[in-house]
Amino acid sequence: MTPPAVILCQTQMGENVGAAARAMKNFGLSELVLVAPRMEWPNDRAQILASGAGDILAAARVYPNLSEALAPYRLVLATTARGRDVLKDIHTPQSAARALRAAQAQGARTAILFGGERAGLDNDELSLADAVITIPTAEFSSLNLGQAVLLLGYEWLKSGDATPAVRTPNTGGQPATRAELVGLFAHLEKELDAAQFFFPPAKREAMVRNIRAMILRSGLTDQQARTIRGMIVALVRNKYRGKT
Amino acid sequence: MTPPAVILCQTQMGENVGAAARAMKNFGLSELVLVAPRMEWPNDRAQILASGAGDILAAARVYPNLSEALAPYRLVLATTARGRDVLKDIHTPQSAARALRAAQAQGARTAILFGGERAGLDNDELSLADAVITIPTAEFSSLNLGQAVLLLGYEWLKSGDATPAVRTPNTGGQPATRAELVGLFAHLEKELDAAQFFFPPAKREAMVRNIRAMILRSGLTDQQARTIRGMIVALVRNKYRGKT
Repeated sequence: MTPPAVILCQTQMGENVGAAARAMKNFGLSELVLVAPRMEWPNDRAQILASGAGDILAAARVYPNLSEALAPYRLVLATTARGRDVLKDIHTPQSAARALRAAQAQGARTAILFGGERAGLDNDELSLADAVITIPTAEFSSLNLGQAVLLLGYEWLKSGDATPAVRTPNTGGQPATRAELVGLFAHLEKELDAAQFFFPPAKREAMVRNIRAMILRSGLTDQQARTIRGMIVALVRNKYRGKT
Repeated sequence: MTPPAVILCQTQMGENVGAAARAMKNFGLSELVLVAPRMEWPNDRAQILASGAGDILAAARVYPNLSEALAPYRLVLATTARGRDVLKDIHTPQSAARALRAAQAQGARTAILFGGERAGLDNDELSLADAVITIPTAEFSSLNLGQAVLLLGYEWLKSGDATPAVRTPNTGGQPATRAELVGLFAHLEKELDAAQFFFPPAKREAMVRNIRAMILRSGLTDQQARTIRGMIVALVRNKYRGKT
């Protein structure tokens, strides 16, 4: 599955091409295309900002106009700022990423279009895209080119990433068995009774329920349950030692 | 609902604090906290990179150590690179954003922790967080501090953003009625018959089905259906004019 090409139109600053290349590298994109760049090319500032992504700059293709640059692509999505008057479907970055993946899965080459720093894509450039993408932002925001490429690259990688939302690392232990937990409850409650912790006695039942809930919620492993019992033993021993 | 604080630990470069502030501004975050910064503060490079986010820098609080900085927060999530040996739940940025929103909805102040440029958060710093966040990236990637803040800010804003995945702008027209579409089909097919377009005749039915599907798929408005009929009229007229 070929990742989408990143096509930068009328870019003015080499720094931004470099930042875009670096952002691409972070998320597994590699095909960079420049259309009518408004700066020297190759560009020293781009090289510096790209740091580890010099290979992407070296392989970048340059075209004098957009229709030539877009020739091989079967799905082209264009980034624009919010609220632009467009006649096309407007995708969130996440939805755009899904659309790109779906096209790629059918063997289509795809591209994401980014406009120049000052004014973004003009209407002529937009008219060649299938649909547009707007990145949700707070008011008075101004995403720069490198940031926009980063966010689209991120969503693209995410759309094919199977990482579960939350992983709980294997800490070497198994979740404690109910027997181990009940053993811990009994041990702790016996020592708290001995220390006259439960006061007034009428509240003992509610307090015990609370403590048990707190322990269960922490999802102890068998090793952690043993560690806590060891702490109880140590604290009790210390108390008697203090008294003698 | 108070957005999460961004807490930067042992930051070495003012540029990165500036880029972080700018990224925060883009996504509606405003509370910036520096812990044991390893650079001058206030910092000229930070000012330059922050561009429109100088207010965030001006309001930033500085603490000598992390436990003091974290005092008011009830949910603290720490960013770490992939594969770190942690004993806590590991969230994707999206899942972290949901957890932050949920805590905020109950009135809790929340924070996202970012480590220094060279080595990220150390184990002592991580031990004070409730859970960790890792950003999915391609191999051999190196997200910088500003990029990490940008992606977390983006996910936070997204988690409260009701923008539908795909919007189809109201282009001023209603979707064409079936009568208008059937009128268009009849008009087009009549002219194509007259022009002997359908050849061989045995294939007419399949070709018609294809053309109708193509038209329906484009989701025409009533105005667009009329425009196409106008184009057909113009093309046919031109043909006869050419012949006379």
